[in-house]
Amino acid sequence: MTDLTPLDEDFLPVSGFVVPRFAGPSTFMRLPMLSRDEAMARKVDIGLIGVPWDNGTSNRAGARHGPRALRDASTMVRMFNQATGVHPFHMARCADLGDAPVNPVNLMDALAQLTSYFAEIAASGIVPLSFGGDHLTSLPVLRALGRHGPLGMIHFDAHTDFYDTYFGDFRYAHGTPFRRALEEGLLDPRRIVQIGLRGTSVTGEDVAFARSQGVRLFFIEEVMEVGAEAVMREARAVVGDAPTYVSFDIDVIDPSQAPGTGTPEIGGISTFMAQQMLRGLAGLNLVGADLVEVSPPFDSNGLTAWTGASLGFEILCPLALAVARARAISTD
Amino acid sequence: MTDLTPLDEDFLPVSGFVVPRFAGPSTFMRLPMLSRDEAMARKVDIGLIGVPWDNGTSNRAGARHGPRALRDASTMVRMFNQATGVHPFHMARCADLGDAPVNPVNLMDALAQLTSYFAEIAASGIVPLSFGGDHLTSLPVLRALGRHGPLGMIHFDAHTDFYDTYFGDFRYAHGTPFRRALEEGLLDPRRIVQIGLRGTSVTGEDVAFARSQGVRLFFIEEVMEVGAEAVMREARAVVGDAPTYVSFDIDVIDPSQAPGTGTPEIGGISTFMAQQMLRGLAGLNLVGADLVEVSPPFDSNGLTAWTGASLGFEILCPLALAVARARAISTD
Amino acid sequence: MTDLTPLDEDFLPVSGFVVPRFAGPSTFMRLPMLSRDEAMARKVDIGLIGVPWDNGTSNRAGARHGPRALRDASTMVRMFNQATGVHPFHMARCADLGDAPVNPVNLMDALAQLTSYFAEIAASGIVPLSFGGDHLTSLPVLRALGRHGPLGMIHFDAHTDFYDTYFGDFRYAHGTPFRRALEEGLLDPRRIVQIGLRGTSVTGEDVAFARSQGVRLFFIEEVMEVGAEAVMREARAVVGDAPTYVSFDIDVIDPSQAPGTGTPEIGGISTFMAQQMLRGLAGLNLVGADLVEVSPPFDSNGLTAWTGASLGFEILCPLALAVARARAISTD
Amino acid sequence: MTDLTPLDEDFLPVSGFVVPRFAGPSTFMRLPMLSRDEAMARKVDIGLIGVPWDNGTSNRAGARHGPRALRDASTMVRMFNQATGVHPFHMARCADLGDAPVNPVNLMDALAQLTSYFAEIAASGIVPLSFGGDHLTSLPVLRALGRHGPLGMIHFDAHTDFYDTYFGDFRYAHGTPFRRALEEGLLDPRRIVQIGLRGTSVTGEDVAFARSQGVRLFFIEEVMEVGAEAVMREARAVVGDAPTYVSFDIDVIDPSQAPGTGTPEIGGISTFMAQQMLRGLAGLNLVGADLVEVSPPFDSNGLTAWTGASLGFEILCPLALAVARARAISTD
Amino acid sequence: MTDLTPLDEDFLPVSGFVVPRFAGPSTFMRLPMLSRDEAMARKVDIGLIGVPWDNGTSNRAGARHGPRALRDASTMVRMFNQATGVHPFHMARCADLGDAPVNPVNLMDALAQLTSYFAEIAASGIVPLSFGGDHLTSLPVLRALGRHGPLGMIHFDAHTDFYDTYFGDFRYAHGTPFRRALEEGLLDPRRIVQIGLRGTSVTGEDVAFARSQGVRLFFIEEVMEVGAEAVMREARAVVGDAPTYVSFDIDVIDPSQAPGTGTPEIGGISTFMAQQMLRGLAGLNLVGADLVEVSPPFDSNGLTAWTGASLGFEILCPLALAVARARAISTD
Amino acid sequence: MTDLTPLDEDFLPVSGFVVPRFAGPSTFMRLPMLSRDEAMARKVDIGLIGVPWDNGTSNRAGARHGPRALRDASTMVRMFNQATGVHPFHMARCADLGDAPVNPVNLMDALAQLTSYFAEIAASGIVPLSFGGDHLTSLPVLRALGRHGPLGMIHFDAHTDFYDTYFGDFRYAHGTPFRRALEEGLLDPRRIVQIGLRGTSVTGEDVAFARSQGVRLFFIEEVMEVGAEAVMREARAVVGDAPTYVSFDIDVIDPSQAPGTGTPEIGGISTFMAQQMLRGLAGLNLVGADLVEVSPPFDSNGLTAWTGASLGFEILCPLALAVARARAISTD
Repeated sequence: MTDLTPLDEDFLPVSGFVVPRFAGPSTFMRLPMLSRDEAMARKVDIGLIGVPWDNGTSNRAGARHGPRALRDASTMVRMFNQATGVHPFHMARCADLGDAPVNPVNLMDALAQLTSYFAEIAASGIVPLSFGGDHLTSLPVLRALGRHGPLGMIHFDAHTDFYDTYFGDFRYAHGTPFRRALEEGLLDPRRIVQIGLRGTSVTGEDVAFARSQGVRLFFIEEVMEVGAEAVMREARAVVGDAPTYVSFDIDVIDPSQAPGTGTPEIGGISTFMAQQMLRGLAGLNLVGADLVEVSPPFDSNGLTAWTGASLGFEILCPLALAVARARAISTD
Repeated sequence: MTDLTPLDEDFLPVSGFVVPRFAGPSTFMRLPMLSRDEAMARKVDIGLIGVPWDNGTSNRAGARHGPRALRDASTMVRMFNQATGVHPFHMARCADLGDAPVNPVNLMDALAQLTSYFAEIAASGIVPLSFGGDHLTSLPVLRALGRHGPLGMIHFDAHTDFYDTYFGDFRYAHGTPFRRALEEGLLDPRRIVQIGLRGTSVTGEDVAFARSQGVRLFFIEEVMEVGAEAVMREARAVVGDAPTYVSFDIDVIDPSQAPGTGTPEIGGISTFMAQQMLRGLAGLNLVGADLVEVSPPFDSNGLTAWTGASLGFEILCPLALAVARARAISTD
Repeated sequence: MTDLTPLDEDFLPVSGFVVPRFAGPSTFMRLPMLSRDEAMARKVDIGLIGVPWDNGTSNRAGARHGPRALRDASTMVRMFNQATGVHPFHMARCADLGDAPVNPVNLMDALAQLTSYFAEIAASGIVPLSFGGDHLTSLPVLRALGRHGPLGMIHFDAHTDFYDTYFGDFRYAHGTPFRRALEEGLLDPRRIVQIGLRGTSVTGEDVAFARSQGVRLFFIEEVMEVGAEAVMREARAVVGDAPTYVSFDIDVIDPSQAPGTGTPEIGGISTFMAQQMLRGLAGLNLVGADLVEVSPPFDSNGLTAWTGASLGFEILCPLALAVARARAISTD
Repeated sequence: MTDLTPLDEDFLPVSGFVVPRFAGPSTFMRLPMLSRDEAMARKVDIGLIGVPWDNGTSNRAGARHGPRALRDASTMVRMFNQATGVHPFHMARCADLGDAPVNPVNLMDALAQLTSYFAEIAASGIVPLSFGGDHLTSLPVLRALGRHGPLGMIHFDAHTDFYDTYFGDFRYAHGTPFRRALEEGLLDPRRIVQIGLRGTSVTGEDVAFARSQGVRLFFIEEVMEVGAEAVMREARAVVGDAPTYVSFDIDVIDPSQAPGTGTPEIGGISTFMAQQMLRGLAGLNLVGADLVEVSPPFDSNGLTAWTGASLGFEILCPLALAVARARAISTD
Repeated sequence: MTDLTPLDEDFLPVSGFVVPRFAGPSTFMRLPMLSRDEAMARKVDIGLIGVPWDNGTSNRAGARHGPRALRDASTMVRMFNQATGVHPFHMARCADLGDAPVNPVNLMDALAQLTSYFAEIAASGIVPLSFGGDHLTSLPVLRALGRHGPLGMIHFDAHTDFYDTYFGDFRYAHGTPFRRALEEGLLDPRRIVQIGLRGTSVTGEDVAFARSQGVRLFFIEEVMEVGAEAVMREARAVVGDAPTYVSFDIDVIDPSQAPGTGTPEIGGISTFMAQQMLRGLAGLNLVGADLVEVSPPFDSNGLTAWTGASLGFEILCPLALAVARARAISTD
Repeated sequence: MTDLTPLDEDFLPVSGFVVPRFAGPSTFMRLPMLSRDEAMARKVDIGLIGVPWDNGTSNRAGARHGPRALRDASTMVRMFNQATGVHPFHMARCADLGDAPVNPVNLMDALAQLTSYFAEIAASGIVPLSFGGDHLTSLPVLRALGRHGPLGMIHFDAHTDFYDTYFGDFRYAHGTPFRRALEEGLLDPRRIVQIGLRGTSVTGEDVAFARSQGVRLFFIEEVMEVGAEAVMREARAVVGDAPTYVSFDIDVIDPSQAPGTGTPEIGGISTFMAQQMLRGLAGLNLVGADLVEVSPPFDSNGLTAWTGASLGFEILCPLALAVARARAISTD
């Protein structure tokens, strides 16, 4: 138990020894819920943001309900990470910024609203940790964070999401965000690592494209063979110390541990292995992250929401370390 | 037990005394599944058509999975209606025409595809009984059936679906189909009856509009007070003998009997009362019908699909009567 | 609150104010569980017996798990009937006799075992209240109880169960028990009343047969029109004061209140109406009863088991009255 | 559609045409969530308060999770009551005050905390509409509201909750709150009406006690016979115009419409009938209300939460009318 | 992405980029559904066949519903295996042949019908990949395929299914198929490998028998210790290049990944390990296969069906390789 | 298959080949259910005891329903352990002693009742294997078993349960039993091993305390790194040959295999690894054991109950070995 002084007592979650975990407001990790203006005024470092939107989903929808279920489950998260000793809420002011604006009946309008919203968040200097929603929600975030130059990305997923079009020539769907991001110059393909790929495929065009661009692909067989530590060692080397984004699709996890998602693939990584890998992000120059594709209508016992909330905390830890490091550097 | 000669033995469902109801192809009511070309060649009278599309849903999605769940449940439907003696499969050639074409990531493209598809169905002389999908799926069907002049409509629903726009100025959503249909001249408002309206409301603008157009609204309180028979007597008088459409939103049923829907409202009509009302459609000049808003992800024990399939059969009976009457008239 | 002296304190269920209802052995209505020998020695009047067998099920199986689920739910039943004032456990020694012997992989062997078992129960002078299992479980009970002459029967069900054969010429299935019972002279058709019939039908052959035999059929429409009291008045008149059996198929109840059954039919009777009808059995010369077709695998929230257990208690009350009346007569 | 001017725009829920109902903070009916201090400063009239506590539950627990599930479901409630035209949010400033303090491992400590909390709420002049939690949560509210003299009460429930002790001599449980309230002089027994009583009973001691005190008991059979209007006419006469409390136990509703509760009883009232009865509260001098015993772990498809949220809105309407009347009187 | 020319375009599944995976007919892996006559005319190589039959189940039934649930889930399978590069639908004409004939109320009649049916399939030169149904469904398939001499078998299962009799002297149950197959000379015991055995046992008689016959048993402990590759190396050596059957009981998988089965055993193999083992079948002389014991009523979130469909595809791949090899040989 | 002679035929569970596993009384592992007096008279060695109590639960309750669900699931356990060859029912007379007395509305009263109950059990010379209930149920058992001197303990859990107080200064909760047991001198801290610790933490005070006392803590990372065998080798060394207790909290298992528990933590041990570790208890001087925190309301498909029942059998095996060893020693 480290003797830590928090930056600001107001940003520490209420203890479950004082208010039971089933009581009190249902916010991400029991953090205060603030508007963007309040967050700026209070110098919030990291904004946990819901993106209740799944219009890009080509198969089973429902991720629009993800943020609410994740908030609910996340009230069982506590103060610090016993495995790493990281106390994220002591190191960075974290707040729940509520949900981003969406439009469930018009994809392009919603995409425009989200693009604008995340541009403002980024302009406020708040590091976004967003909770989807489907994977198309990553695109507007990348538009905001990648506006000064292409980012690196460590991407956990069963699928590449590098497809070009769906149902004819439709370019915006939950399988295309990173194709679009590359086209828009938001990501540097040689600094992208994809981990956990698997499942059957239609044409393999996505994988061929990714390889042609220099993306490092870890299919599940390689992950299982070399192990979490080796994967992350190489992932860290690939992205280096330049600004990097983390995108975590819950379907990278085996469906026994995350059944509530739109496109499950058997034979996935375990939550234990995911924890080891996410802990391997510590020390990277992270500028934002997301966790997507939790679909509550297919999550009959709430396990996926709990898995997502728990892994969201594991992502928050290295993000808080990055924020603290940036603060230390800027203070020097 | 009437001694009936079917039009065509091939269009009688397989008996559950021969093939158990859990076995064999999962088609609507165990009917043959035919392409549109085959259906025309075989002189199919009524086409049961799935419309797996829910992009107009403003709240809880999932109706895209409706057709498959309804087909599965419908294999428990048998040959004839014990309450009325109607043998629909003996009176009209009925077939499962499969699913209409959709695009889950682009509402306007899907709407165009569906409009074109149902225009072809109508041009083939096949009477459509479509299974949604959300309520926006009614619009392309009405565009096809109402092309020669406005139709009457008997509409069972907890909601009017007469809203104008959503999320700003978006005109196509599952709460707007009948506003659009009126604008497009597909329905005659003075020949529309809405039955089962209830629930809280935002502004009441939809009801005010409907009343201003001369629509006959039966709120649930009136339905419960006067009873099924009186409601249907007036409904029949309102639509008269001119061509009439039937639209059945499963949320008109109490959520205890139809929990799997996007916008449930407590205090609904019972399935028994719905059966009485649907039997009251017998003798009308029906030109098509739909049953919409069954959302399997919210239907934890399959009851809604079974309710929908059973009521779909009740709708099929008067539709088959109308087909038989039309045949008799044209034969004269 | 009547001041009652029980026949035997040992046969009163433990109070939920002493041992919580979720604690203690899971027996029918918290009664003692006795072997048949013990039951005879202790002069048990009514034996509550599980029949975990569903090999006669032509559609969705699972009623084999019924007795266990019904026992579990029934521990929430208390001492007396507030609506009628009947204290069944004070009036008759009731015990849980455990499960009858079955064979899940051979229908004819199981039927023989059950026939023998219930013959012994009847020979012991114990009145059976059996909990299925599917409806074929009624046949071995009737073979025992009807051995001295045909019985009357009040039969609650969505289906007549008067079919002749299934899947070719197979004569034993859950839709044939009463056809067989008539053939075997166990029931008097003119003293049979069937209540709650509904749903689609294949050929109507069952109904035609029943009518030809003089069975009184109450379809659901008549039940709803004349009401519980009128139905039961006529039912009592039909069976008269001669020995009568009660068979209650849970599918007579609307599937919103009893979803966990193999062949649900929408538009059923409510539990409230069922309670009124079962209370109308008071005073009849009842010699046994069953409650069948509770299928736990399709009962996602346990409601059907609770409905079945509660209605089982309603059946037990008039059965206890009949036992007490018989005792009074024999004592005179 | 009435042309209404709200007291304060800030207290109108966000429209679902602007922010979808699955998005945004999960507060009661999308109201602002305020602390008690903020509520006082903003002159809040009615406080919607969660009481996540179920330590008085003798059977199946889980009502501690009720407030969160009710908040979640309640975001589907809209602005006004179409059946009555009442716009509660325009007539009274309503806010979500969050959850009252509880202690899940010590009943007496929790009871003391709640007693103190509700005393403060009442002292602030805020009318409480609390959402349980089990029925013992009513006691601390009554201690606050009944401090100036015994109240009348209209109590909807399958059970009287007039028991004396449990498990020996334990006096505080979810079946005893109104016995205690009578002993503490918080309720006037001759101004209590209980509606919907049913189910089996252990000794009948509770009913005998209630009758001896002059409580008006409506068992379900009487309710079904005379109908909602007659029941409420008499209920209004019994409580008169003096201060009256409303307590609504969700188990009064039939378990098909409210399965998620600890002590379900079959044969209950329908939500439609409940709506009619709750609308019959209009015009009474209501000083507070609660809705209790929603137990999410037993609510497999969320229907009970939706039923509870919808009926909570029906309770809020007459409460807002009472607030508006009181304001009008005090303004005169 | 290999540049492959399919044998016949008509036998390639429709792409999910054209028709969404929730739309269109629910056939195995979106293949065309053909009658046996059509299949012969179209030179179908591999027939995917449902066997909706569970009358041999001694414990929890429900596998009769397996084929329908597997078809539904299997529409999420795509064109090729990313891990191995195998394109089964390009290498062999695959079709859904519908369901085999069954009789749910008479085990021996059903067994006779199935024996006759599979004899015809085998006579047509179609390689069967059947989807159960319980494990007794393997026996009629083996009778067809083993008619020219005993086969080898690689059998994945938690249980040996080598029991002799059940419930007295009943010889046909889901725990006896391979005892019967040995007695009938359909299998060569020294060419049988059983993988994944575990759980408690009654007498151990089955294991003793298997060992006495020379069957190679891999208990789970050995599988976990030596790993998938070593197990399959030995398995391939045991069966050699002679005709071999594959039988896959879903209960070999850990119940967290396949809960919907009749006799789950904790501590099973993971789907990832199963995939590695099934890929180790490549190159064997496979003549047929089955996947059995998926029981949808116990599969609350559909995960077992998805696991079964995914592993069914992994079995199809080596089967298609075997077909292609046989074609190449016969062409030479 | 060993040729074993049981101590007493009456204490062997009924075979599933005679009575199907879904039939017959629902007792632990199909053992006879005896009162404590009968158990003493019959010289029962090991008593399987339910403790349906969860009043110490600070978060999600429901473990009060654990014993019933565990009994139900446990009827699928068979006679012997195939992996180890241990036949526990042949080596020790095992019986189901029913449920211990509890009081759901008063924690301290229940604790007193349980303390007294287990003191009597211990005084009878019966070794308790109790099934919770939450983890506070371990305290009264330890009070009974540790009365002659502090015990060693091997404790499987995600949490230390060494907290001091909850919600102020409340000392009895499911996170405090072992703190209390140390204070009461019931356990020797240097002979305690805790295995499987993980998850986020509030203050880390519990871990610091445990370490200060000399408890050996195995966090999950160490368990995964060194493996089951190494963990158990050290655990056996730590507890030595002195009397030792085993406490198994189901939440040590990964929530994919045991979702039905109050405080799940992702990244847990697998059931396979748990089996290996529990088999490593063989030969220890075990004096009692428990398995706790199975919470059926959160166990949507019954998997947790089955996992608990299966692991309960794995615990019973070394307990029976210890009993047999003690008998052998005392006989010498």
